Amino acid sequence: MTFHSMWAQLLPIGRSRDSGGYRRFAWSGADADCRAWFEEQAETRGLAYEVDRNGNQWAWLGDPAAGDAVVTGSHLDSVPDGGAFDGPLGVVSSFAAYDELRARGVEFAKPFAIVNFGDEEGARFGLACVGSRLTSGQLTREQAHRLTDADGVTLPRAMEAAGYDPDAIGADPERLGRIGAFVELHVEQGRALDLSGDPVGVAGAIWPHGRWRFDFRGEANHAGTTRLGDRHDPMLSYAETVLAARREAERAGAVATFGKIAVEPGGVNAIPSRVRGWLDSRAADQERLDTVVGGIEKAARAHADSQGVELDVVRESFTPVVEFDHALRDELARILGKDTDLTVPVLGTGAGHDAGILAASIPTAMLFVRNPTGVSHSPAERAAEDDCLAGVSALADVLEGLVGR
Amino acid sequence: MTFHSMWAQLLPIGRSRDSGGYRRFAWSGADADCRAWFEEQAETRGLAYEVDRNGNQWAWLGDPAAGDAVVTGSHLDSVPDGGAFDGPLGVVSSFAAYDELRARGVEFAKPFAIVNFGDEEGARFGLACVGSRLTSGQLTREQAHRLTDADGVTLPRAMEAAGYDPDAIGADPERLGRIGAFVELHVEQGRALDLSGDPVGVAGAIWPHGRWRFDFRGEANHAGTTRLGDRHDPMLSYAETVLAARREAERAGAVATFGKIAVEPGGVNAIPSRVRGWLDSRAADQERLDTVVGGIEKAARAHADSQGVELDVVRESFTPVVEFDHALRDELARILGKDTDLTVPVLGTGAGHDAGILAASIPTAMLFVRNPTGVSHSPAERAAEDDCLAGVSALADVLEGLVGR
Repeated sequence: MTFHSMWAQLLPIGRSRDSGGYRRFAWSGADADCRAWFEEQAETRGLAYEVDRNGNQWAWLGDPAAGDAVVTGSHLDSVPDGGAFDGPLGVVSSFAAYDELRARGVEFAKPFAIVNFGDEEGARFGLACVGSRLTSGQLTREQAHRLTDADGVTLPRAMEAAGYDPDAIGADPERLGRIGAFVELHVEQGRALDLSGDPVGVAGAIWPHGRWRFDFRGEANHAGTTRLGDRHDPMLSYAETVLAARREAERAGAVATFGKIAVEPGGVNAIPSRVRGWLDSRAADQERLDTVVGGIEKAARAHADSQGVELDVVRESFTPVVEFDHALRDELARILGKDTDLTVPVLGTGAGHDAGILAASIPTAMLFVRNPTGVSHSPAERAAEDDCLAGVSALADVLEGLVGR
Repeated sequence: MTFHSMWAQLLPIGRSRDSGGYRRFAWSGADADCRAWFEEQAETRGLAYEVDRNGNQWAWLGDPAAGDAVVTGSHLDSVPDGGAFDGPLGVVSSFAAYDELRARGVEFAKPFAIVNFGDEEGARFGLACVGSRLTSGQLTREQAHRLTDADGVTLPRAMEAAGYDPDAIGADPERLGRIGAFVELHVEQGRALDLSGDPVGVAGAIWPHGRWRFDFRGEANHAGTTRLGDRHDPMLSYAETVLAARREAERAGAVATFGKIAVEPGGVNAIPSRVRGWLDSRAADQERLDTVVGGIEKAARAHADSQGVELDVVRESFTPVVEFDHALRDELARILGKDTDLTVPVLGTGAGHDAGILAASIPTAMLFVRNPTGVSHSPAERAAEDDCLAGVSALADVLEGLVGR
């Protein structure tokens, strides 16, 4: 089965006719269809199929218990109206790279597996990388049991409805301990490869990132009768802060985004009493991120003070920088560069991944495939078929090097 | 019954324990309690109580059919978590002024009435001044029958549940034709009287006002991985527009407010694809309003163009300037100024009122009572008791002048 035909099988699953985007939410019907496809791919190749206690799917060659396994894979779920590549490209490329290794007649000196991590996007329950977080112990069963979707369905009820045992979930150190190296291939979510002119790159680090809630409290009043000078309008301070975020991020070569807002009372003819805006910011290192967020907060506070608006800033979540294993990264770069004089680009990334979660426990690396527009989490997300095949070939080279060691 | 004791009777009705504000929505239980109070006040004084076909309450002295009646009143319903004064101050002052006229031994040469207009705030069905609009023919029965509240209850079902006949509603030119002058007393919704040091003023005009929807369409993308230069972020254009609105309004001595916003997809880690913001703007005259809104739109478009963001601006509603009857206004000013050398302040206002609706059909005037903070549509709305009594006295003077002509 070629890359192209595997890709064609997945394409229709969970695609919205309205948006053209994908709605493959964890433990939904579309997710089940993707998972059935994974199981079939494993069986077609005679790989041993299993689902771990956290609902992650595995396709094994050789005896997992032997240890020092080489594992590759990604995820099949999507954000709301996401693109076709984020996740599936890594899983399809893993099967295609395995086929390539068989065609090359590679001897597998170590156990090998392909994995599909459950609920990577967190689109349904609000927390990303649930499958890998549970396995690595970064999310406890008790915490996971409290996750609830927008319809009030809890994660355990959703897993149960999909045929899994929610009481079995939790840390799985024995399984993690059997893995010697994990490599995730992913479509790039920016334009670095497009700008450098390379089809494939290697991940250096995942930027530190966080979410901050800016809570501006002013005074509700009549929009028609309240003189400008008598207003304490938190929307003005919010607007100033949105523009400050852009300025500060530009200055530091970082990113900062306000994508979510809540306004009270939210009437057209009412000056708001309260505006809450959520800042997402990421930068190449901790110092730069601190500078950006500090600068935004300073600008927000200065404007709020000038308007008689109160401001609270709360850090709602934070993930420090994830440095991928340097030895493994250098080995990937060496393998990919061995037939050329070219240096393989090493990219930082602002996005979280299962590989970023696992990096805390085991040697982990990532490969990125060029995305010409850089668009991500949208149906406009793209990778050329030639670049996808270059990605498969690079992954096969890397895996051949790792399983033959 | 004194002003103070009438006020005390109304105070507990429909007050929220949580917010301290009022929730007296049209045709609700709290509204029915207010209406029962009105009926009792009419009967206590031997005034002829009636409800017109549109649910407005009237308390008559003399024969309405004689024509050229002098009418005063306001409304008893409230916005969500509104204050105690907006509406009820006018109704209570009307009864108190009538008592004052009786105490003065005034002869009523003309029919006289006190009115409570139904559903002035439009808090439940989204349209303000439903009672006066229906009576004056500015809202048809068919249009009114399509009004629906947030729970899906239509206006006719709500009226029926409150004991009224929704099929009888509609224009009432005969009733309007019997009124020679309508005077509405209202708490000021700004600080003009506080700044001029007067307890009472006369309305000059209601400012023209409108609502515009600014629809910014950009491109959804990943907040962590999309370089700033590759973004088409409509939130930035929205923020720039909010600040431009303040600048333009300041320059023109007008008001402009963004109090409502809708963001898609609205995720913390997603650059928005679309931001819709609603502008409410009002100015002393049409030309100034055009200048303000034109300036805001120009700034919005320039910023959107610079970001590759598309912009549509739609005027959702518009009310031209309402000039109150000049002869009646001058007569009020003359009556109120006759014992002093002081000029009574004549104020423009940015708020709509039943008096503004009726002004299109009959001679109409308004009195405002000082509101020291200028706060309106909020539990913080206030008028000092001395100023309320000054308002009653001014209203009594005006009515004495009008009924004795």
